[in-house]
Amino acid sequence: MQFLSDNAAAVHPAVWRAMMAADAADAPYDGDALSRELDAAFTALFGRACAVLWVATGTAANCLALASMVAPHGAVVCHREAHIEMDEAGAPGFYLHGAKLLLAGGEGAKITPRAVAAVIDPIRDDVHQVQPHAISITQASEYGCVYRPDEVAALAAFAKARGLGLHMDGARFANAAAFLGCAPGQACAGVDALSFGFVKNGGLGAEAIVFFDPEAARTIRYRRKRAGHLQSKGRFLAAQILALLEGDLWLGNARAANAAAAEIAAAAPGRLLHPVEANEVFLSCTPAERAALRARGFAFYDWGEGAARLVAAWDARAEHVTALARAIAAL
Amino acid sequence: MQFLSDNAAAVHPAVWRAMMAADAADAPYDGDALSRELDAAFTALFGRACAVLWVATGTAANCLALASMVAPHGAVVCHREAHIEMDEAGAPGFYLHGAKLLLAGGEGAKITPRAVAAVIDPIRDDVHQVQPHAISITQASEYGCVYRPDEVAALAAFAKARGLGLHMDGARFANAAAFLGCAPGQACAGVDALSFGFVKNGGLGAEAIVFFDPEAARTIRYRRKRAGHLQSKGRFLAAQILALLEGDLWLGNARAANAAAAEIAAAAPGRLLHPVEANEVFLSCTPAERAALRARGFAFYDWGEGAARLVAAWDARAEHVTALARAIAAL
Amino acid sequence: MQFLSDNAAAVHPAVWRAMMAADAADAPYDGDALSRELDAAFTALFGRACAVLWVATGTAANCLALASMVAPHGAVVCHREAHIEMDEAGAPGFYLHGAKLLLAGGEGAKITPRAVAAVIDPIRDDVHQVQPHAISITQASEYGCVYRPDEVAALAAFAKARGLGLHMDGARFANAAAFLGCAPGQACAGVDALSFGFVKNGGLGAEAIVFFDPEAARTIRYRRKRAGHLQSKGRFLAAQILALLEGDLWLGNARAANAAAAEIAAAAPGRLLHPVEANEVFLSCTPAERAALRARGFAFYDWGEGAARLVAAWDARAEHVTALARAIAAL
Amino acid sequence: MQFLSDNAAAVHPAVWRAMMAADAADAPYDGDALSRELDAAFTALFGRACAVLWVATGTAANCLALASMVAPHGAVVCHREAHIEMDEAGAPGFYLHGAKLLLAGGEGAKITPRAVAAVIDPIRDDVHQVQPHAISITQASEYGCVYRPDEVAALAAFAKARGLGLHMDGARFANAAAFLGCAPGQACAGVDALSFGFVKNGGLGAEAIVFFDPEAARTIRYRRKRAGHLQSKGRFLAAQILALLEGDLWLGNARAANAAAAEIAAAAPGRLLHPVEANEVFLSCTPAERAALRARGFAFYDWGEGAARLVAAWDARAEHVTALARAIAAL
Repeated sequence: MQFLSDNAAAVHPAVWRAMMAADAADAPYDGDALSRELDAAFTALFGRACAVLWVATGTAANCLALASMVAPHGAVVCHREAHIEMDEAGAPGFYLHGAKLLLAGGEGAKITPRAVAAVIDPIRDDVHQVQPHAISITQASEYGCVYRPDEVAALAAFAKARGLGLHMDGARFANAAAFLGCAPGQACAGVDALSFGFVKNGGLGAEAIVFFDPEAARTIRYRRKRAGHLQSKGRFLAAQILALLEGDLWLGNARAANAAAAEIAAAAPGRLLHPVEANEVFLSCTPAERAALRARGFAFYDWGEGAARLVAAWDARAEHVTALARAIAAL
Repeated sequence: MQFLSDNAAAVHPAVWRAMMAADAADAPYDGDALSRELDAAFTALFGRACAVLWVATGTAANCLALASMVAPHGAVVCHREAHIEMDEAGAPGFYLHGAKLLLAGGEGAKITPRAVAAVIDPIRDDVHQVQPHAISITQASEYGCVYRPDEVAALAAFAKARGLGLHMDGARFANAAAFLGCAPGQACAGVDALSFGFVKNGGLGAEAIVFFDPEAARTIRYRRKRAGHLQSKGRFLAAQILALLEGDLWLGNARAANAAAAEIAAAAPGRLLHPVEANEVFLSCTPAERAALRARGFAFYDWGEGAARLVAAWDARAEHVTALARAIAAL
Repeated sequence: MQFLSDNAAAVHPAVWRAMMAADAADAPYDGDALSRELDAAFTALFGRACAVLWVATGTAANCLALASMVAPHGAVVCHREAHIEMDEAGAPGFYLHGAKLLLAGGEGAKITPRAVAAVIDPIRDDVHQVQPHAISITQASEYGCVYRPDEVAALAAFAKARGLGLHMDGARFANAAAFLGCAPGQACAGVDALSFGFVKNGGLGAEAIVFFDPEAARTIRYRRKRAGHLQSKGRFLAAQILALLEGDLWLGNARAANAAAAEIAAAAPGRLLHPVEANEVFLSCTPAERAALRARGFAFYDWGEGAARLVAAWDARAEHVTALARAIAAL
Repeated sequence: MQFLSDNAAAVHPAVWRAMMAADAADAPYDGDALSRELDAAFTALFGRACAVLWVATGTAANCLALASMVAPHGAVVCHREAHIEMDEAGAPGFYLHGAKLLLAGGEGAKITPRAVAAVIDPIRDDVHQVQPHAISITQASEYGCVYRPDEVAALAAFAKARGLGLHMDGARFANAAAFLGCAPGQACAGVDALSFGFVKNGGLGAEAIVFFDPEAARTIRYRRKRAGHLQSKGRFLAAQILALLEGDLWLGNARAANAAAAEIAAAAPGRLLHPVEANEVFLSCTPAERAALRARGFAFYDWGEGAARLVAAWDARAEHVTALARAIAAL
């Protein structure tokens, strides 16, 4: 019973079907009919003109999005536990040609204008110090916490006031949108570029970089190719994304994952390290308790010495979820 | 009737099957069982210990392979029409942190020790000039020409004598190996790293970087992640590659493509700009002749003013090939 | 008797005096009074608003100037024997984060709109190919040839029409301006950024980067510091430059060097490989002839098998020059 | 009365004399006789074979030294207030091609093996996380604190045990060595590369990068040129350094600066934020007190809200120092 990672989840059957349906001759790279549908599909989804590029990974999506905002001598402000800081092997440094990440604090791996200001206000505007060029937030955050629309709006206003770009790492944007229940565009209003994740949510190997300033995508098309991320059979990436957008399958999958996490969380509210708003549960439990859970067949990661991380994927089986919830309640 | 590009070809059914069979929970990234089979599979294929990393594109494969040989202040010698020079958007400059490509000439986009020497011998070994660190050759070449084992061996010996790494861009390595009919290891003997292409030959989005010095792969694992090329569901890339290795499907596909190209070439031997050894045919023909072919339903690229490039994919349909051959003969 | 390089020439006494006069407490970096005079001094010289940054070397000047025009995925068109291509150790690749140099031909290491067009016209405007972002010319060229104002104007018009920046490597701009005898601004009209050399012309270690779009200097101030080129005692660099501008000392020095070269050239007009317009003489002569010259005490570099390069510095002694001219005439 | 920065100090007369004496034709770049003396001079000074490169700035020295130890996918551990982190405009990110700085804490801007371990022990040795490749310490530290030989030895042993390089930013190495009174080699024993500062200590524009593994300098010679830091009249940089080494002038200058700082510190021991071991005094004092000092003609920087930084240079005038000490005592 697998609660290790939503990366380990299955590919949705509709995604398989769409990929196989795309297996016909078409223009290579992103000249195919499916790739060319993306801009319109996301513009419709968000109610705001956008230009969209597919890439295979969230790391590439984040870095290419940031490359549209940050010069080599600049910096990105993010949470100190942000994925781009902790888990991307320094990819932002590579893609941004040595630009820095400046680290802010905040509960649940969320940041606020105040937290960002605490980082950047001491920076003198002189050539000796690295200047901030962008803010990056993760929706839902690395701890499964969701920015509310007013929180995003506040960050967007702050970014604009300070002349900074605003990037949203939406590896689990679907889970955030499902939690919020609002129009998708409200979950990222004011954001300049969104890494919209599909791989963890029923996809195989496709993420979307959504540029809300379509002009910003122009340069990034070159950068994508230059990074070796322009796949020659790009139609298969576009197919995955379109299949998940179709009929709001992406939202349905995310709701299922969130519901599973909620069921697990409800089993032990006193153990929760963070509010469970998306599909991740961070649970205080001892090594012995973790061993007990594993002995019953549950797979998950330790989170430091005294906690566990349990991730519910879109395809978490109801009986596994219920069994896990009971096992936790019984600890 | 499509002769534009082998990138437009279909995914082989065995590849689809293998991918779908891989759609079960396993370790993310390249920790899954399939990814871990790759080293052994290629070691068996080549009869030489190797370490293998998958990536989604040939550009990433080439650049990461070169990153194991070339320091930022160094250079790669390649043909002036090499893919890395002409068609990768400057990706080597990105991945190699500003290292240069030094351009050699040669018939059919093939280079020789003599051609490489002509480029590097004038370089003084002082700090003012960019020093060569590696040679990159394309097998089969950008004009569909195949290096014979003794030609590769001569380049390998030269590279070794000059302290240079030797990289082989094998986007169409399968076609070269099929043409040569030798053991695969002979088609790349002496090479330090091989970009082994599968996408053009029945794959969907997976290429293999084969390091014949397994130790060289260590650093490149970090670089792959840092470039955003470590896909979280890497099992699907490994599955594609293993499916194509299985039963030498890769060779069978390549033989089919080569045979189709040979049939086309045989229709107009006097028009061939290069010997047809792999699956590409470069044909002298006038704009009017090209228009005539297109009028009959054949799709292909112009190659400058007076020529056409016709690419036969692994799945070229026999009747299309024969029809094209006849149409060319009748020009 | 030294004709190796104008780098080996002496520092002008006025430069020494100015440096020593600057040896008083002032603001560090470029906040001192002298550094702050530079914009006005060059604006007066060129009759055109400009912003000026000092750096210690021509390589840094060239690369920082180009950094204001060229994105990492772009390219610079230059002559294939340009200093930035041949003698700067790949510094443009470093400073431009992997951007390329595209090489054009041309007599005397000069390029023309036609030569640039021959390089860039075949480049498709798609993401697979590196796009040109700038042109770089050297005034006087690496072979001591001088662009006439109409030649620079033609290149500037071409650059503008194609959306390219225009950079001038003026390591020997003084010699070019002295040769032309026109207003300095005419020798670089239409140029976006000029590397104005002083080191070879009586300076010690200071060059000026002149941005004719003052706004373009803003970003480059960060880049200069980031490259470790913002010296803490920058007043000593500004002092050198201002001393050489004072009373047109820079022009006087260059005229002296040019005159020396002209005297040498006049001794053997039939041997000249390039017209002698600045302070360099490229002379056809056999190894035996070169040995004979050296036996008489003249120091200079070979230029390939059958030629010599003789450089006259601002402080070339009249008797040395005359002796050399006679020795050449007597060969 | 200037206590702003040792960057504002004068150039020592012996340095001027040496520079003017170097104003004779010699080989350009670092082929001149003076540059070629450096290895032997520092080998004698440190009693340990070393290879030495001059550069104009401490930022370039630090970054080139680190470039010998840190791959682009690696990281440098330094204090969170280290100069390379706070004041070099992201130069390490540029020179190290995107490598990171990992920030450790510690009193007086000094770090310990324990502090470094706290930063790197949580880093998993997997490809998702940036791996440490080197440690950088500043001697004397950014707060004027000096590492004792046993502290450096402990860090060197730790670095070796962890497979990390050890760099010392010695912008004020002279002040540290003067404070310690030990053999210079003891002040940096176990260090792999030292940025040995001269600019703040009587020089004009020359620092030495000392590689205690002479082989490590080989690659960095290319990198120096590639960064535009190989000055064509390098003899003037070598001359500065040799003049300051001559007769231990560097130590004498540093002792004078340290003594001045000590006199100031003795005036208000209760106000010291850090022990005064080199030539910097960090003094707790209110805005009103700072205004009072300035009203008496003392120039210095604020250090946050409640403190001042006073820097004594090698040429601090005794009467100014005494006046300042009295003024502080009288606050």
